[in-house]
Amino acid sequence: MSGRIAADVEMKDELPYVHKVGKPPKQDLLKEIKTALKETFLSDDPLKPFKDQPRKKKFVLGLQTFFPILNWGRDYNLSKFKGDLIAGCTIASLCIPQDIGYAKLANLPPKYGLYSSFVPPLIYAFMGSSRDIAIGPVAVVSLLLGSMLQDEIDPIKQEHEYLRLAYTATFFAGITQAALGFFRLGFLIDFLSHAAIVGFMGGAAVTIALQQLKGLLGIKHFTKKTDIVSVMRSVINSAHHGWNWQTILIGVSFLTFLLVAKFIGKKNKKLFWVPAIGPLISVIVSTFFVYITRADRDGVQIVRHIDQGINPSSVNQIYFSGPYLAKGFKIGVVAGLVALTGHFPAVNYMAGCHTAVSNIVMSMIVMLTLFVITPLFKYTPNAILASIIISAVVGLLDWDAVVLLWKIDKFDFVACMGAFFGVVFVSVEIGLLIAVGISFAKILLQVTRPRTAVLGKIPKTTVYRNIEQYPGATRVPGVLIIRVDSAIYFSNSNYIKERILRWLTDEEETFKDHPRVECLIVDMSPVTDIDTSGIHALEELHSSLHKRDVQLILTNPGQTVLDKLHASHVADLIGEDKIFLTVNDAVLTFAPKMEQA
Amino acid sequence: MSGRIAADVEMKDELPYVHKVGKPPKQDLLKEIKTALKETFLSDDPLKPFKDQPRKKKFVLGLQTFFPILNWGRDYNLSKFKGDLIAGCTIASLCIPQDIGYAKLANLPPKYGLYSSFVPPLIYAFMGSSRDIAIGPVAVVSLLLGSMLQDEIDPIKQEHEYLRLAYTATFFAGITQAALGFFRLGFLIDFLSHAAIVGFMGGAAVTIALQQLKGLLGIKHFTKKTDIVSVMRSVINSAHHGWNWQTILIGVSFLTFLLVAKFIGKKNKKLFWVPAIGPLISVIVSTFFVYITRADRDGVQIVRHIDQGINPSSVNQIYFSGPYLAKGFKIGVVAGLVALTGHFPAVNYMAGCHTAVSNIVMSMIVMLTLFVITPLFKYTPNAILASIIISAVVGLLDWDAVVLLWKIDKFDFVACMGAFFGVVFVSVEIGLLIAVGISFAKILLQVTRPRTAVLGKIPKTTVYRNIEQYPGATRVPGVLIIRVDSAIYFSNSNYIKERILRWLTDEEETFKDHPRVECLIVDMSPVTDIDTSGIHALEELHSSLHKRDVQLILTNPGQTVLDKLHASHVADLIGEDKIFLTVNDAVLTFAPKMEQA
Repeated sequence: MSGRIAADVEMKDELPYVHKVGKPPKQDLLKEIKTALKETFLSDDPLKPFKDQPRKKKFVLGLQTFFPILNWGRDYNLSKFKGDLIAGCTIASLCIPQDIGYAKLANLPPKYGLYSSFVPPLIYAFMGSSRDIAIGPVAVVSLLLGSMLQDEIDPIKQEHEYLRLAYTATFFAGITQAALGFFRLGFLIDFLSHAAIVGFMGGAAVTIALQQLKGLLGIKHFTKKTDIVSVMRSVINSAHHGWNWQTILIGVSFLTFLLVAKFIGKKNKKLFWVPAIGPLISVIVSTFFVYITRADRDGVQIVRHIDQGINPSSVNQIYFSGPYLAKGFKIGVVAGLVALTGHFPAVNYMAGCHTAVSNIVMSMIVMLTLFVITPLFKYTPNAILASIIISAVVGLLDWDAVVLLWKIDKFDFVACMGAFFGVVFVSVEIGLLIAVGISFAKILLQVTRPRTAVLGKIPKTTVYRNIEQYPGATRVPGVLIIRVDSAIYFSNSNYIKERILRWLTDEEETFKDHPRVECLIVDMSPVTDIDTSGIHALEELHSSLHKRDVQLILTNPGQTVLDKLHASHVADLIGEDKIFLTVNDAVLTFAPKMEQA
Repeated sequence: MSGRIAADVEMKDELPYVHKVGKPPKQDLLKEIKTALKETFLSDDPLKPFKDQPRKKKFVLGLQTFFPILNWGRDYNLSKFKGDLIAGCTIASLCIPQDIGYAKLANLPPKYGLYSSFVPPLIYAFMGSSRDIAIGPVAVVSLLLGSMLQDEIDPIKQEHEYLRLAYTATFFAGITQAALGFFRLGFLIDFLSHAAIVGFMGGAAVTIALQQLKGLLGIKHFTKKTDIVSVMRSVINSAHHGWNWQTILIGVSFLTFLLVAKFIGKKNKKLFWVPAIGPLISVIVSTFFVYITRADRDGVQIVRHIDQGINPSSVNQIYFSGPYLAKGFKIGVVAGLVALTGHFPAVNYMAGCHTAVSNIVMSMIVMLTLFVITPLFKYTPNAILASIIISAVVGLLDWDAVVLLWKIDKFDFVACMGAFFGVVFVSVEIGLLIAVGISFAKILLQVTRPRTAVLGKIPKTTVYRNIEQYPGATRVPGVLIIRVDSAIYFSNSNYIKERILRWLTDEEETFKDHPRVECLIVDMSPVTDIDTSGIHALEELHSSLHKRDVQLILTNPGQTVLDKLHASHVADLIGEDKIFLTVNDAVLTFAPKMEQA
């Protein structure tokens, strides 16, 4: 009912609105630049809570922003501490074996892995705001770091230099991340497509798992390359020398145990602690088992020795000059950027149920490990560390996401596969390059070849829609209506002009018996912006159409577009009376002989 | 009248169309890829004339495509030849002095410049299709080539090697252009914005003109650098040694003559031949003058010697191995790409009035020059060549375009200035880098931060438009309507989601006395495509809104979007009954209490 009333007075009445638009007021340059900068760098509006607050309050809010601990510290109590204690212990038991494994991925002594679960959680406890802990990307960054460092320096022959380059690279990785945060450049990660990341992570997971075959099968001479062909050749060749069956037995049984534990935790959310303490149980049981049976004498490789205690400061070990400075810098920047993909939480463990104190607990436990418990790791078989890492990275293989990619967007699927096979068959760096390359290609394709559509009238309405999508829509005789589905910029202006003219030619050739097309309506609803190249293209379109004796009519241009049409006098060229608010208005004005269905 | 009839039956009647859409048929992957490839590489539909033709006809058409001379050769006659003879002579008289100048820009002997007006026009006569001749970019490419070659090899001390590197670079420039043509990659030029090219060309024009100060002022020791600071320092320092006033007199008077001739040709189109024969007249008069007065004995530098005849083939001079191969390749590729900017015709002379035969005439004249007339150039003063080049590149300074850039798009203006000052103050390469960089930054900004707008109802219509643009549009109580002005891809999906939620928060805070926002309508009209990241963002938006007890409603999604919504089951999540054809339908359904104005 009410709809009919509104519709009844539509049409001619609204034409005045079109003309009213006229020449809009001058745009405010400064304001525009300010808005653009704000949308680019501060799109999450981080300063909002500070707005309109007294100075003192601002200071307190600022402190709380940098130290969220101030927020929750005041109403902390014993019951919460109990939860944190359990959570801290669980996470520590999960992290310690993994840390040692990740250090191995980067060809570093185990204790460096443990550092990563000792210092960062402490800082995070005071300054972090999220309560989730994302592992996963850590493994990928470790692998990437190891593979890039190894390309420069041999980690065994030049142990000291390798370590120094690692310090340098990680230093610059930190600087990179701090800079990205400070200059709010986190949006750079938007340039890596989700699909490419799924493929890259999956490939990295496979690569990491393949590297663990060394420990799992007890292979002595293993390739340094990471691609699947080299690794499988290495595995097959070593078969001649005989794999160590004791190692395989231990490795495979505990891997099965860990995967089952993981499955249980996934099926029943209440049993989340099962997969969490799985690794620690594996380490304890297997270490005890090897200690009892002295299986290490039968060829089961064990950790043997982990340095106790904490290193002195290594600042003076960083290469601040010489040829390794540039190399370390490059590796660090790449690693720092890849670590950004951690924003796509790959694997999240036990979110929400604990506060930052759990981080402190965890940190303390790891410190205790570093100082006291490490000797106990002596008899831990390497195979156990391998199975723990495999079970950890399995989660990076996101099958559901891949299936969805195939269903939704074939191009995304190809991008995903490209990145995956790049990592698996060549190297982590090449996979990364493919991921970035495909992502960029997609962006560029999108901006140079926007879609256009011929519109038709949906019967019994005043609405015009894509004829392909709505086969019921009908063409208006003598009128061709084309919608341009993108802002018109230098990157696509030429194409859009040519495409519109091609639509016209196609139309004339396909419907030879129809009345001649006398006017071409370009629906600019989706055209939110236009630049000088776009203005030129419109000018050229106008003159091309003029030569073919076809009128050019524009409908519903956005504010910015209208501004620029007037600033460049193209609005006068086309004629202000040929710019309408809706396609329907334009059709009613310029095709009066049409039959209203 | 007729409009009213149509409007009268609108509204409710069209709702069925929404539901009818339902699950669309599966997309045809192969067809889609084919279309995408065709739109990217063959957007000008070059194979169209061949369609549905018998094989023999196809062959003839194919021959004609490669040799357009077959098209017009049949109805060529004497009267046309007369026109071509005049045109050919005029162009030759314009080109010969310029060619010698351009060769100097590239630090090459004059005859190499003449080659460029001898061989290419012949090939073009048989195989070219356009009748326009674009000069201008040639000067820029010469300068770029000279400056890049000079960075590698000293053109005076190692003359032979320099020449060989020049052969190598130009060989690869040709290969690059052929490859771009064959693989139809000309669209790559779309990535350089018009604004950046205007700035780059302007800067190159200034740089080229500055280089001519050497010849114009008769300076002996001139800097090899091209930036304005070095050149001006060189000019001022040479003032101590005294400039050659005879040279200056000759140079400045003929430069004035040439610029006046150019001005006349611009004002009166019928006198187009005045600026065209100006250079030749200058050369003849000045050469004769110097020969009579023997001004060269007073320090007026003259050309002295131009090699006669044509070189033997220089294929064996090209570096196909060794360290210069890579350098020549790099320089060639850059020069080949920059030459592509010739697609933006900077200066077009006398288009249309002649056929390809004029090219043959021109070629013959230049050949005659090479074999016979070159000795006559002996007494041509260098200052004349300098003034001819200056008057030629003045046309590359496009003031009107710059003014228009400032008026239409401030960002474009900044890009233009960046490229201009980069060339003038640093070097051609840096200017080019700035031009490319700014162009890319603009593309990336465009894809990561698309616009969104809050819509309101335009009174007395069923049309919803941007509230900012149409202040008369009114908000619907309890409903927030947001239009997303871009396809949703990984590069912007996160931003769009956050931006929509921010609009909601702002709305709630600004209009605290209004009824609570119960439903949020996202108008997807401009959203022509979506990828998996976009689908995820919609999913997250839905759950965020669900938590805030706000309903999510979509209107008018394009076909592809609808396909993917169904493929991913997000359509089911949101509810098919919440996807509408128009905003008005959605408002009528979900805000029934609103008053119809």
